[in-house]
Amino acid sequence: MTSPVLVEVFRGSLLESEHRGSVAVIDADGNAVLVLGDVARPVFPRSAVKPLQALPLLESGAADRFGFADDELALASASHTGEPAHVAVVERMLAHAGLDAAALACGAHPPIHVPSAQALARSGREPSAVHNNCSGKHAGFLCVACAMGADPAGYTDPAHPVQRAVKAALEGIAGVALDDRNCAIDGCSAPTWALPLEKLAHGFARFGSGRGLDPHRAGAAARIRAACAARPYLVAGTGRFCTRIMAHFGGRVLVKGGAEGVLCGALPGAGIGVAIKCDDGAARAAEVVMAALISRLLALDDADRAALAPLVRPALRNWNGIEVGALRPSGLLAQRT
Amino acid sequence: MTSPVLVEVFRGSLLESEHRGSVAVIDADGNAVLVLGDVARPVFPRSAVKPLQALPLLESGAADRFGFADDELALASASHTGEPAHVAVVERMLAHAGLDAAALACGAHPPIHVPSAQALARSGREPSAVHNNCSGKHAGFLCVACAMGADPAGYTDPAHPVQRAVKAALEGIAGVALDDRNCAIDGCSAPTWALPLEKLAHGFARFGSGRGLDPHRAGAAARIRAACAARPYLVAGTGRFCTRIMAHFGGRVLVKGGAEGVLCGALPGAGIGVAIKCDDGAARAAEVVMAALISRLLALDDADRAALAPLVRPALRNWNGIEVGALRPSGLLAQRT
Repeated sequence: MTSPVLVEVFRGSLLESEHRGSVAVIDADGNAVLVLGDVARPVFPRSAVKPLQALPLLESGAADRFGFADDELALASASHTGEPAHVAVVERMLAHAGLDAAALACGAHPPIHVPSAQALARSGREPSAVHNNCSGKHAGFLCVACAMGADPAGYTDPAHPVQRAVKAALEGIAGVALDDRNCAIDGCSAPTWALPLEKLAHGFARFGSGRGLDPHRAGAAARIRAACAARPYLVAGTGRFCTRIMAHFGGRVLVKGGAEGVLCGALPGAGIGVAIKCDDGAARAAEVVMAALISRLLALDDADRAALAPLVRPALRNWNGIEVGALRPSGLLAQRT
Repeated sequence: MTSPVLVEVFRGSLLESEHRGSVAVIDADGNAVLVLGDVARPVFPRSAVKPLQALPLLESGAADRFGFADDELALASASHTGEPAHVAVVERMLAHAGLDAAALACGAHPPIHVPSAQALARSGREPSAVHNNCSGKHAGFLCVACAMGADPAGYTDPAHPVQRAVKAALEGIAGVALDDRNCAIDGCSAPTWALPLEKLAHGFARFGSGRGLDPHRAGAAARIRAACAARPYLVAGTGRFCTRIMAHFGGRVLVKGGAEGVLCGALPGAGIGVAIKCDDGAARAAEVVMAALISRLLALDDADRAALAPLVRPALRNWNGIEVGALRPSGLLAQRT
């Protein structure tokens, strides 16, 4: 099945590139609200499920034991840009568990936020695992291990108690058995299990609304959502799509992106979950699709429309700041009139 | 017309992403050797035509007047990574024309080569236009302006004598009239004219072989090809696809990439030109396609096969260096048996 074109990229007046993909918009009861492309094929959710992977941090008692509040829960759900504020929270989480950066198994990369990467270089220090965009999730995993009384070593192994708890949380919330034959290794060395896009969207609908979840899990999901809504900068960083969306919409929209063009979201008020996979792995396209879907699915006021407009049709600017083109959602995603 | 899948991206044993696109392999007489997808639609060649955009540097007499040899001709054809060796040649080119970095209209960005970006940050200096990957082409444009006796100011305007000469060279070598309605602004603010992929490939076949060109232009093309073959590191940089291919194949293969998934090449011995456009703009896919085409079109020895293998099926490694997947050319591009 050939996926439909979701986003077109124009340079001047000509189509330069295009992005195909699949979209599942599902309500908390599992009903399809909007489906484009093949939503039954297994897709690696990558970092898009970090807010769901953070459930054991609450359910294990780790968050309460270590006194974690919004900052820590937002960081555990984050693909952060390695800015000083992000790194500080990660280091604090590790310290609560009596650990330091040496315990992180995510690998090192320079901060995604370029000025922070430049400042780090100027300081003469090397990028370390705390700068990895997944370091908050990993710090959370380590805290779960400590709260469980498990040896933190090997915490990224799919057989480690932490990952078994994460897998069980994903299975429970998405209502699907994750097949170990569909397990692969993520960029940060944590396991990632592929699941159908429609199940992923259903999981976000239930995560966003609490509907169909036991009260303990619904409460954990509500705390994570509230943390992301309160601290959107910690979930991503300066100028990032997820931060911009949540900074504007607060608790009305949760969005979380993953590598290879995956982007998920929840509209708690409507009890709706969204899962997007761009076939080619392009984040720029998944973001346009999500912005267009929010435009279509939420009741918007003028301020909402003004906040969304530059994300629905982002301008392409060159190194001199000249507007040279734009991305546009395809007709399939046309806004509600 | 839906373009075929050219490259598949696997994570573990599952297909994670895929890239569609078009391919034109054309001989110097304009005959199709291999065509996939729509090759008649206008495509912006972006930086892939830099070696062709360098023709006026020789044809105007600028290269000889300023004593330019392989280093300068390779840099004029380059999308470089901003390493010190690249910057030094650009500064030398500008000095020959009595100019400095202030004359460059390409805009500034940090060196693409991360250690060089880090070293620049440590030095306390800001990225400038000389670090822009296109600065060598722009330095070449400025030298052409000087040799023509034209005011260098405004040299990126499509109506400037330098760009008129560049456009005429592209039209002559590709055998196509470039339509000003299909002109847009490139990332570096130079004009880019869209043309059919089949014409672009034909242009590279003629650029690579000299066939069908007047002797003056054929000689200029041969000098640029020889410079790129002699100094492949200057055409791109550490670890880059074009550098790796040309460092191994020397004068047997010229390759040059552009933004948004464009990659062109010439196999001078076979008198063949190649032009690839990935629909979604992915360079990683265009590189796999080019490596697969070289495997198919050239007679290879064991060393050639060993050099190409990691480019035809590149491993995906995560931040810990763990192999988590691979890119593979689709069956359409299967190597000659």
